[in-house]
Amino acid sequence: MQDIGVGLIGTGYMGKCHALAWNAVKPVFGDVPTIRLAHLAETDDELARTRADEFGFERASGDWRALIADPAVDVVSITTPNRFHAEMAIAALQAGKHVWCEKPMAPKPEDAEAMLAAVRASGKVAILGYNYIQNPAIRHIRALLDEGALGTVNHLRLEMDEDFMADPDMPFMYRHEASSGWGALDDFGVHTLSLVSTLLGPVARVMCDMAKPYETRITADDGRRAVEVHDIATVLVRLEGGASGVIALNRSAWGRKGRLAIQIFGSKGSIVYDQERMNEFQLYSTADRASEQGFRTVLTAPHHAPYDRFVPAPGHGLGFNDLKIIECRQLIGRMRGEPAAAIGFEEGIGIERTVDAMARSFREGRWVDV
Amino acid sequence: MQDIGVGLIGTGYMGKCHALAWNAVKPVFGDVPTIRLAHLAETDDELARTRADEFGFERASGDWRALIADPAVDVVSITTPNRFHAEMAIAALQAGKHVWCEKPMAPKPEDAEAMLAAVRASGKVAILGYNYIQNPAIRHIRALLDEGALGTVNHLRLEMDEDFMADPDMPFMYRHEASSGWGALDDFGVHTLSLVSTLLGPVARVMCDMAKPYETRITADDGRRAVEVHDIATVLVRLEGGASGVIALNRSAWGRKGRLAIQIFGSKGSIVYDQERMNEFQLYSTADRASEQGFRTVLTAPHHAPYDRFVPAPGHGLGFNDLKIIECRQLIGRMRGEPAAAIGFEEGIGIERTVDAMARSFREGRWVDV
Amino acid sequence: MQDIGVGLIGTGYMGKCHALAWNAVKPVFGDVPTIRLAHLAETDDELARTRADEFGFERASGDWRALIADPAVDVVSITTPNRFHAEMAIAALQAGKHVWCEKPMAPKPEDAEAMLAAVRASGKVAILGYNYIQNPAIRHIRALLDEGALGTVNHLRLEMDEDFMADPDMPFMYRHEASSGWGALDDFGVHTLSLVSTLLGPVARVMCDMAKPYETRITADDGRRAVEVHDIATVLVRLEGGASGVIALNRSAWGRKGRLAIQIFGSKGSIVYDQERMNEFQLYSTADRASEQGFRTVLTAPHHAPYDRFVPAPGHGLGFNDLKIIECRQLIGRMRGEPAAAIGFEEGIGIERTVDAMARSFREGRWVDV
Amino acid sequence: MQDIGVGLIGTGYMGKCHALAWNAVKPVFGDVPTIRLAHLAETDDELARTRADEFGFERASGDWRALIADPAVDVVSITTPNRFHAEMAIAALQAGKHVWCEKPMAPKPEDAEAMLAAVRASGKVAILGYNYIQNPAIRHIRALLDEGALGTVNHLRLEMDEDFMADPDMPFMYRHEASSGWGALDDFGVHTLSLVSTLLGPVARVMCDMAKPYETRITADDGRRAVEVHDIATVLVRLEGGASGVIALNRSAWGRKGRLAIQIFGSKGSIVYDQERMNEFQLYSTADRASEQGFRTVLTAPHHAPYDRFVPAPGHGLGFNDLKIIECRQLIGRMRGEPAAAIGFEEGIGIERTVDAMARSFREGRWVDV
Repeated sequence: MQDIGVGLIGTGYMGKCHALAWNAVKPVFGDVPTIRLAHLAETDDELARTRADEFGFERASGDWRALIADPAVDVVSITTPNRFHAEMAIAALQAGKHVWCEKPMAPKPEDAEAMLAAVRASGKVAILGYNYIQNPAIRHIRALLDEGALGTVNHLRLEMDEDFMADPDMPFMYRHEASSGWGALDDFGVHTLSLVSTLLGPVARVMCDMAKPYETRITADDGRRAVEVHDIATVLVRLEGGASGVIALNRSAWGRKGRLAIQIFGSKGSIVYDQERMNEFQLYSTADRASEQGFRTVLTAPHHAPYDRFVPAPGHGLGFNDLKIIECRQLIGRMRGEPAAAIGFEEGIGIERTVDAMARSFREGRWVDV
Repeated sequence: MQDIGVGLIGTGYMGKCHALAWNAVKPVFGDVPTIRLAHLAETDDELARTRADEFGFERASGDWRALIADPAVDVVSITTPNRFHAEMAIAALQAGKHVWCEKPMAPKPEDAEAMLAAVRASGKVAILGYNYIQNPAIRHIRALLDEGALGTVNHLRLEMDEDFMADPDMPFMYRHEASSGWGALDDFGVHTLSLVSTLLGPVARVMCDMAKPYETRITADDGRRAVEVHDIATVLVRLEGGASGVIALNRSAWGRKGRLAIQIFGSKGSIVYDQERMNEFQLYSTADRASEQGFRTVLTAPHHAPYDRFVPAPGHGLGFNDLKIIECRQLIGRMRGEPAAAIGFEEGIGIERTVDAMARSFREGRWVDV
Repeated sequence: MQDIGVGLIGTGYMGKCHALAWNAVKPVFGDVPTIRLAHLAETDDELARTRADEFGFERASGDWRALIADPAVDVVSITTPNRFHAEMAIAALQAGKHVWCEKPMAPKPEDAEAMLAAVRASGKVAILGYNYIQNPAIRHIRALLDEGALGTVNHLRLEMDEDFMADPDMPFMYRHEASSGWGALDDFGVHTLSLVSTLLGPVARVMCDMAKPYETRITADDGRRAVEVHDIATVLVRLEGGASGVIALNRSAWGRKGRLAIQIFGSKGSIVYDQERMNEFQLYSTADRASEQGFRTVLTAPHHAPYDRFVPAPGHGLGFNDLKIIECRQLIGRMRGEPAAAIGFEEGIGIERTVDAMARSFREGRWVDV
Repeated sequence: MQDIGVGLIGTGYMGKCHALAWNAVKPVFGDVPTIRLAHLAETDDELARTRADEFGFERASGDWRALIADPAVDVVSITTPNRFHAEMAIAALQAGKHVWCEKPMAPKPEDAEAMLAAVRASGKVAILGYNYIQNPAIRHIRALLDEGALGTVNHLRLEMDEDFMADPDMPFMYRHEASSGWGALDDFGVHTLSLVSTLLGPVARVMCDMAKPYETRITADDGRRAVEVHDIATVLVRLEGGASGVIALNRSAWGRKGRLAIQIFGSKGSIVYDQERMNEFQLYSTADRASEQGFRTVLTAPHHAPYDRFVPAPGHGLGFNDLKIIECRQLIGRMRGEPAAAIGFEEGIGIERTVDAMARSFREGRWVDV
């Protein structure tokens, strides 16, 4: 395979994360082509130039269309606000580029469908930025489930909680408007669904409740405005495989910073994981002698690929940004036609349809089939 | 107040727990009348005699009616299977005895109502064995909520999980029959509701799902019989006070032995607790300096009444049986007309009505008002 | 065996703990004779009468010698300050009573030796109040070590930390005088040595450092007085069995309330325990598959005798006072000539000799053989 | 400042870690010059070429002297086995390069002294690879200590434990020979001393014990050979500031993978940290209200610089390799004459002298002044 020419649109939280991943993927993994950081686009030329310098990109543009037109670019990282995803991804695919787009696909279902149509028409690769599934701990949990370490899974609980919306004195902002989405449901729900999908398969039925911790928020003119989104969502779920469960989401959970807690119960054991301690998972196995059964805290280690590509010593710990490097390696694998654990547009649209079913369930106060 | 003459019916798991509490309540608390262990009843004379000797009771009967007729008995501990509660409690109250009855009140709502009517008619005290609310940690959490340490509570999650039904090879038994109740819902649900009620007040609306981890179980004749109860129940709830939440119950959760996990989120902080580590709770407060905010692990200590009656040193730990001693002290307080933190039949019937609403919600697949 | 007549001298922290144990031992264990609470002694008649009433004792005396002379007393619980232990224990043994004496034996080595001589001359049973070794978790750890679960033990670390001396503004008191002992070394050291002795056998050599967190403390007249004891002690140890290790003790460790942390390392695994979470221990075993090795958190359960005598359900938790009930059962067993896990005067004097060796090591700044 | 031309010698565990840091330091921090990956040296041309390609270096040599002679190189990363450090570092400094050398400096004290002399003569910057001190959690602990959050520190405990030498069936290898050093003492001791030095200042006196978990190991010819190093070392310490403490090191501690546990006790509170959970620390403060005092688990966050350069969201987690990126940023700062938290040769030699004092203490069985 030839060198890979990379284009990056957007340099915020996730844009920087992509930039770090593109810089590191070859030193970490070795077995990939040379990565050329070809072109970076931002909202204006100056910012683009500054970030291109920092992140090591050759060219810089204040217009993302210039990037997509650039023949030096083979793959485009799209890290702009969600409402731009569809237009950019479709343009990139039509220009013959591969696409690495941050999640979720698009606020409007029809846009997501158009993105899927575009990738199918293009013959190119398009994956979404579901980084949590790339954790070696999560991958190993998947392997344990596959080998039957828990027997038949019959119940699961997922919680995703942060506290960036917890302060009642935070002023009203665009993320409190209905146009920005449902709130916790799309913001966090898609992450939890990426994990359910990866570990246990598709969701069949949902029953959703949503709540607002604060009905109004202060505005710039010292008035108060009604909050239009729900920072809390709790969803009863039934999986196609038969297991029951619950997904609980809260963006106003004081003290939770990056909690993404998973509990999986099966006929032979249980597994527990929390992203706030992302370098460990807990396994309870009934294969252990009865008088010493207990949840084992397993620290991720070279046993759990591709941890070994980062550190040869066990228990030394990966970080949040490392997950993006692994995701980047999956993208490259898929570009080379190899099997790769990543969520493409096809699977991604399934996640977003599930979120839509949850929202409908809430509106209608009843169980909804996905 | 005169001596207290105690009658104990039943000497299984909870019967022994009551016996230990009656033996210990005066040495622990000091400020109570002399406790006379007057009469113990079991299913036959010989077992009654043996247990009376072990537990220190003066008289023993194979007929519980003899115990209730005994003028030396002032208060009756009822620790028999749930289906006997109503008959015994009503008889005891009609005989002018106080009643300490294990939870839940009765499998049939009409029986529970009859128990309530009996206590109202008697003018006596009747409380239920909701021991978890007696933990000094729980009481202190209540005090923190009362003083506004969390601001306005807007969300809660409760989980109660054990694994005594987790083994798929466990044979079919009476607890798998529909006549024994709903399964996790009444077995565990009432405990979680006692905590919700104590900490946050009544539940207004519920939406319940129930599930069976194993559809059938093996029978004595090597056949298989359909399991009629649900070992898993998950319930979306709305409290009268406005908070949203979820209650998740699982009797087949491998590795969970006595988990009763509480998460309470408010506008100023959060509290987390787990009965498996019953001597600590976690507090997150936004009053702490931002750069050192975090969940504090507070070990129960003499600060948290009545811990000091057990041990004068902090962090030395109470046990499960100690909670029953505190409950016993509450009963005596109520018998003396003092305010006491305990769940009487009136509040208890509210808990059971809530469980019934959950069951109806599951059957009808919709939200139900309590 | 006939009834057991109990005498209790002292009703402070440990006196109450003994009283609770004597009240509970028969209801908990069943298989013991009837316990008669015969006689209680305190420093004056009135206090003795009050406590006897609370704790359920028949007679009360302001003079402990009356208790020892009482023929109704078969066994004497001695829970007075350490400096009284020798006189009382010797008198009790000479009067033909069994003795249950709180630890340590005596501040002066010659007194401890006299206590040992007395018990040998008496033919009676005398045990010391080393309660932490009675935890079912500790007993199970011992069983695991005996069966070779860790292979050959080669290293250990023990820490015992509380914070009752941590406040620099606490006034000078008798426990800061040299006459009260060494400080952390005798106060905490003996507890850790009871565990080393129980789990791993005798200590062969020691190298001790001691330190004062506060050189002086305020006095009642607003002056300051030099502290004569050491609230911190750290001791390098070598066991007779060959393992190396360290024992670290701190009575001024802010935040530690009842920490008694044990780490044991062997050729096949490791065990970790902390008394602040006394209902669990951690086991790491190389017999587990490599990719899932980790410390298992094992909750104590009916598998771990005699937990089942307290609660039939796993993971429901014992408390600090329950350990004394188990110790009491051991005492009764030894009185009946049964094997019993308890520390008698012979083993106890070994512990105190080890503490003396530690103190000498500190004074002389060198390794000392025990 | 001009571009920085980087040379890297060695591409093993730490060599790759340096390469990742050099690739990432500008994208992460932004405020540094352009980094040119100029020259990579390995033991032969082919390996050098392969690694240069993976890590993004322009030139590759099988001879490290060619790298040092290369005028395009401004700073040399030295990540070879310890015995080569002195020769390479001195050559690089004499050639006018800055030096980033992995710890420890050199097995022989005279070599370390020569390295120090070389850096002094050169006027260049030379720092050592003590990465653990770069953790934002550790830096914040340092800030808390500086502002007096713990009052006066009076006691500390450090433990560093891994299990790569724990298997008794591991064959004899060069690291078991005396020529490779003391064992745990130099391998782990230097890391713990870098933390003591950073957080609390220099060590004044030491009393060391060392032990061998396994006296012999199997050899290739099925014989057994005596192990010459000590995989366990435990050291009593006194700091110049007056605090007492202990440093415990174990390379054969089954189950410990990257444990580096710190406990610091002061007159107003305590701090606890463990590298296995490197994204959190525990703070106990007596400034909290008494009834809610407890150890707070603080997750690292943008409050704790330079966490924010990696992730803008709190509690999302850094990894082991990220610490090296921070260290690299410190090196660049120091090259620019800015204050920078890093351990240079001067401070590094103090660490190694302390290790030597520990070794002498063990040989002589007595306290040794550093």
